[in-house]
Amino acid sequence: MNRLSNIRPNMSRLWASLMRSAEIGKTAKGGLRRLALSEDDAVMRHEFIRWCEEAGCDVRIDAIGNIFATRKGAEPDTKSVLVGSHLDTQVHGGRFDGILGVLAGLELVRTLNDHGIVTKRPITLVNWTNEEGARFEPPMIGSAVFTRQKAVEFAYSRLDRDGLSLGDELARIGFKGTDAVSADRFDSLFELHIEQGPRLEAEGKQVGIVTGAFGVRGFVVEVLGETGHVGPTPMPARKNALVGAAEVTLAINEIGWSRHETGGKSTTMRIRTEPNLLGAIPDHVEMTCDMRHPDESVVIAMLEEFKARLPALQERSRCEISIKESWSYGGMRFDAGCVDLVRQSAEALRYSTMEMLTEAGHDAMHVAEYLPTAMIFTPCEDGLSHNEAENVTIADIEPGVNVLMQAVLERANRSG
Amino acid sequence: MNRLSNIRPNMSRLWASLMRSAEIGKTAKGGLRRLALSEDDAVMRHEFIRWCEEAGCDVRIDAIGNIFATRKGAEPDTKSVLVGSHLDTQVHGGRFDGILGVLAGLELVRTLNDHGIVTKRPITLVNWTNEEGARFEPPMIGSAVFTRQKAVEFAYSRLDRDGLSLGDELARIGFKGTDAVSADRFDSLFELHIEQGPRLEAEGKQVGIVTGAFGVRGFVVEVLGETGHVGPTPMPARKNALVGAAEVTLAINEIGWSRHETGGKSTTMRIRTEPNLLGAIPDHVEMTCDMRHPDESVVIAMLEEFKARLPALQERSRCEISIKESWSYGGMRFDAGCVDLVRQSAEALRYSTMEMLTEAGHDAMHVAEYLPTAMIFTPCEDGLSHNEAENVTIADIEPGVNVLMQAVLERANRSG
Repeated sequence: MNRLSNIRPNMSRLWASLMRSAEIGKTAKGGLRRLALSEDDAVMRHEFIRWCEEAGCDVRIDAIGNIFATRKGAEPDTKSVLVGSHLDTQVHGGRFDGILGVLAGLELVRTLNDHGIVTKRPITLVNWTNEEGARFEPPMIGSAVFTRQKAVEFAYSRLDRDGLSLGDELARIGFKGTDAVSADRFDSLFELHIEQGPRLEAEGKQVGIVTGAFGVRGFVVEVLGETGHVGPTPMPARKNALVGAAEVTLAINEIGWSRHETGGKSTTMRIRTEPNLLGAIPDHVEMTCDMRHPDESVVIAMLEEFKARLPALQERSRCEISIKESWSYGGMRFDAGCVDLVRQSAEALRYSTMEMLTEAGHDAMHVAEYLPTAMIFTPCEDGLSHNEAENVTIADIEPGVNVLMQAVLERANRSG
Repeated sequence: MNRLSNIRPNMSRLWASLMRSAEIGKTAKGGLRRLALSEDDAVMRHEFIRWCEEAGCDVRIDAIGNIFATRKGAEPDTKSVLVGSHLDTQVHGGRFDGILGVLAGLELVRTLNDHGIVTKRPITLVNWTNEEGARFEPPMIGSAVFTRQKAVEFAYSRLDRDGLSLGDELARIGFKGTDAVSADRFDSLFELHIEQGPRLEAEGKQVGIVTGAFGVRGFVVEVLGETGHVGPTPMPARKNALVGAAEVTLAINEIGWSRHETGGKSTTMRIRTEPNLLGAIPDHVEMTCDMRHPDESVVIAMLEEFKARLPALQERSRCEISIKESWSYGGMRFDAGCVDLVRQSAEALRYSTMEMLTEAGHDAMHVAEYLPTAMIFTPCEDGLSHNEAENVTIADIEPGVNVLMQAVLERANRSG
């Protein structure tokens, strides 16, 4: 890439947009709680659309509420380059996870406007609906519907903790769109994101070139015991489902630790216990668990090891233990051409880089099944995310924003 | 006791009353869900009061909603003998826990009426408010207020899961009474209850003579970890509070098992986890735990052992673990005179008996601090309780009801 553009983003303007976003759903500890399709999400969406329209974009909303804001290209019949991420957050979320990728795209459009640059292809900013899955499960549902991995009716039927459906909530906030936005209209996707891990910061690298994704297995473990009074029931007559859950949790933890040097991770993240009352032995526990490894074959082996350990866990806890449902994602590699554009952009800009896999789930992983896709990571403070203390400085993100801009410009100007 | 009365309860009538109660809050599986101060509790209270008034009793309601129904004695200025238990149930409760003790008292009064017998002292049937603690904690709050171990204002302030206060709910169902019912008015208390354990059934004994109570320690363990994304956070950087909770649960379970041959028990019964979401490492767990042993000094040692193991549990789980609050009850012996009356009644009736300690908490344990008190246990099927499958036959309970009747008659006719 020797045609490096001389334009640069206005980092102060981008930071101001990020800080405006940080006011919408702000928590007492300075994080964000902007759950998908909440009032705050609606306020943020309207603010984003206003900014896009002020920047001259044409805004469309699809049936799942994904927002597409397109800046025209010189050749309007060519496919558009997608740039974006998500504006929703975790319950105790941070100010940058997802948001950086959307607003960096907006800054790219604003910068092109400042310089009167018209790219060959259109550029489309995207905000995916319900990436986090903190309110409606599964996560990344907007991109899953976009890529037809999930039916929109399935997405509409998802319920939050209060029994409200995603479909009704989408309609309530006015984002159940009617625009048919097909993946066929697009050329590629670039997603900029904070790393959500400590590696870039620890090794002093400015840009993460994301070449693919960890293999991920999620599963729900069910433990069946037997209830009874915590007083008179003798120990040998007990089947305390929380004891079974404890055995499961320690086994899962050990399986991750035994592969941690090659990047393995394992987590028991959620637990639901019945009857969960004083005086009663618990008889039913459901736990949602997660295993990840950079090598897809190893994450398969981790899950197999857990299954192989189930009989021993059952015997020790005297409970019935089974895997009730499971899912998988990741394990793929991003498009070599798009990744190479990112690599060349970073080299041309003289940034220090690290090639890495994403360990978290991202909409880009769904889109990668349909379109050439790449991701760019920025360092973040202490690797923290999904946490109100999540933090970056302008210095942390400026290299990534620059690389995003150069890679997207290059892609949007390519022939064919 | 050579003056054994020839009167016997009408077991068919008692069974009919128990089965009427079993309709009020009936669950699909044939158990009861009659939470304290619920609509069903109100219906049952009104039914009980109607029965008491039909049996000629004078009914009073105290400030905490305890119901006292007094049958006059020949010497009205003497102190009254209390007979009763509770009509509320667990969330997935059975048809006999507590209810048997109240309705057996009612049957006693009805039988005395049938035979035109007037005792020297009055006899007062009692239904204690919120024994189970399934809706408002702590359990046994009605007897705790009656014996002035808890202030009524404290009781009123207790909240259920929906944030409704005990005081407001008591007023709503019309049972915030204005009668001053002091413990000073009473001579003694007899409480008949199902064993809630398997010993009587296993050894083929008809009546349990309850001489005292297991020592009980309850405590809340708090585990503090650190949240973060379940993907990128490396295993060595994690503090998963559910891993700490698992270590605690297995340690507590081991401590009970190591004393189970002398009657020790230990339980993790309730868990609350934050943020308890997909994608986030849990950073906060609270568990409510329980330890019991017949020997008060051993239950003290069990809790000390747990405290001594905390540093190792913290080290292994990398979490901060502490005991946030704790409470104790039981460990006392019932009144020798009242217990002896029970023993003599059973002997005179030629029943097989077993002397035992109660392993569950009962209102009688609070009352025993103020009045001479005794408890009588009946066998129950498989020792199950706090369970919709809880069951007894008339043959299981008839000996206990007879013993209750004879012991109460004897006490109510004693001089002095």
